[in-house]
This record gives sequence, structure tokens and C-alpha cells, in this order.
Amino acid sequence: MPKIVDHDERRLEIVHATWKLIAEKGFRATTMREIAKASGVANGGLVPYFRNKEELIGATFEHVFAATNSRFAAVRADLEGLPALRELMLQIFPLDQERVLEARIVIPFWEYAANEPDLLALHERTMDQWRVELGDHLSDARRLGQVRADVDVPVAVDHLMTMVDGVQVIAVVLPTSADPERLTRMLDGYLDLLR
Amino acid sequence: MPKIVDHDERRLEIVHATWKLIAEKGFRATTMREIAKASGVANGGLVPYFRNKEELIGATFEHVFAATNSRFAAVRADLEGLPALRELMLQIFPLDQERVLEARIVIPFWEYAANEPDLLALHERTMDQWRVELGDHLSDARRLGQVRADVDVPVAVDHLMTMVDGVQVIAVVLPTSADPERLTRMLDGYLDLLR
Repeated sequence: MPKIVDHDERRLEIVHATWKLIAEKGFRATTMREIAKASGVANGGLVPYFRNKEELIGATFEHVFAATNSRFAAVRADLEGLPALRELMLQIFPLDQERVLEARIVIPFWEYAANEPDLLALHERTMDQWRVELGDHLSDARRLGQVRADVDVPVAVDHLMTMVDGVQVIAVVLPTSADPERLTRMLDGYLDLLR
Repeated sequence: MPKIVDHDERRLEIVHATWKLIAEKGFRATTMREIAKASGVANGGLVPYFRNKEELIGATFEHVFAATNSRFAAVRADLEGLPALRELMLQIFPLDQERVLEARIVIPFWEYAANEPDLLALHERTMDQWRVELGDHLSDARRLGQVRADVDVPVAVDHLMTMVDGVQVIAVVLPTSADPERLTRMLDGYLDLLR
């Protein structure tokens, strides 16, 4: 089905063009016209792919989520328990330019999701996936004796999930607190509290 | 200087009108025209108070920040160390309808701050104030023996600051994780890790 592949490829090209514009000027200031131009499609040519900015920011967020998961899959190897959890968190954390840009996408996504039920559902679904995954790693960590036996897994996962969101905010709008070493020390300091 | 008082009062009225519109439809979808109408000023009449949406969201954020600090001042009484820290965090947490609405203001504020240096500076300044305050409470807690002597105060403050931001996101776009009891249990679970 080459037509479908082309469609998906073109969608991905548009997502990448959107991403670049967000980096330059933010999503709010970016128009569909500019995204069309940067994607090399005619004015109005975005419509078969994305009908509006809501759909576009949703697809861009999904792309960021998938990219994070791919990075984790590529480095996880045979890590289990706490080291796996740490590696997943580090892939989510905005520790390099690419991931700071991902954070710049996530903030306008939240703003849209606050007022668009489909985007809210997408956010709940993706975050649930990480929540389950972090919980599994933490349960493994407890079973393997990597953390204390009395660690409350659901509460600790809630801590980690606020960290997942909080570090995106810090990367974008508290840059003086966002150097990679400091963020990594923060994560490790938290994991130490569980040992 | 009654004229200045009137000016400030009118600004506050406009901020309240903005707040209400954000609750109803979000800040992005709200126009300056609608805010003018809801504030009872003529079209274009906002300009002496706020020249644009950037100034308005900045003032609204400052109002939320001040309101949180006032709530804390009102309930702090003679609390010191960990109980004071807990109370400040609870005032920041989106535990009731008013504070969920504050969270709905904070997310578009971040989005604007990402691309407006003045708003970014306002965000850094206000968050630094909380950072210092949380650090002082935590140092007091250590001195008073309310937390372990080996607690790394700057790292723990970084945990609390990611929580401050993370819970705003959760309140607005992960509502299934945002019930007040669960958020309070999360905070208390973290404080237990420091004891």
C-alpha cells in the first residue's frame, strides 16, 4: 500500500517542519501557512494530513513520545529494576538540545489538551503507559532488593510522574535551574531516597 | 494618589475577568475584545492597563502567585520547618476548584514565557522566591531534627520545585490522577522519605 506509506511519510515531514518552527518562534506564533510553506506543500495542502493546529500539535506530541520510547529501547539492553527506571527517566529528561526542544513542544500541547478532549485523552493514554512502565520497573527494583521493601510503589510513581512533567517546565521556563548535571543529580538524589 | 489606586483596582478587575474567561474556554481562545467586554471597558479600553495578551497573562500569573502567598501567610501561624513547608506546598497544590483554575492560568503563562523574555524573568523571579522559602523551611526542619541530618537541602528543594510545576500539569491534563487526597498522599509520601 504505497499510498498509505507516502501519506505517513508526508505527515512525518510536516511534524518535523512544525518542530523546527516551534524551536524558532514557539507554536503559538506559528501559523498553518508557515508550516505548509516549511513542509513544501501548497497553501491549504496541509488539510489532508492535519485539519488544524490541534491535530498537528497532537501528532507532534505523539512523535515526541514515540521518539523517547525508541531512545529508551535502544539503550535499555538488559537493565532491570532501578537502572532501567533511571534510564527511562533520563530519556524523558531534557538533557540535550533535542530533548529541550521536545519540552518546548510539550508545553503548548498541554495548553491545547486543557481545552480539547481528544488531546486530553491522548495525554492520559501516553502518560498511563509511562506510569505502568515506571511502576513495573519499581516493583522489579523492590523484588530485586534495589530499593527498600517498604517503598510505596504507587506513591513513588506519582513522584516520578510529577518529575516527568516538572522537568519539562524547568527546561523551558526556568533555564537557570536546568543544567543537565543538576537535573541528573536531582533524579539520582530521589532514587537514593528509595534505597 | 487616588488615580493610581483606581488604576490598580481596574487592573485587578481585568485580571479577574481574564481569570473567569480562562476557566470557561482557555486563554488561547480568549480574545482581548472578550476580556474588554467582560471587564466592562470599551473596545480598545484595555490598552492603558494591558497592551496585549502577554502583559495580561503576566499580571494574571503574578496575581495567582500573590494569592498563593497570602493563603500561606494566613494559615502559617507559628508552624516551623517541615510543617511550614508542607503548608506552603499544600497552598500551591491544586486541591480545590480555585487552585485548579490557577493551574489553568499557569500553563498558558509558561507557553508565553517560553517566548517572551520579560515573562521568563518574572517566572524565574517568582520561582526563586519559592525555592529560597522552601530551602529555608527545609534547613529549619533539619536543624529541628524533623528530617534526617543527611538530607541534601538543594536537591530536595529541586524535587519539591518539580512537584510544584508537575502538579499544575496533572491538575489540568491528567485529571484522573489529580484527586486532592492522592496529591496530598504524594506530598506526604515524599516528606516521609526525608524523615
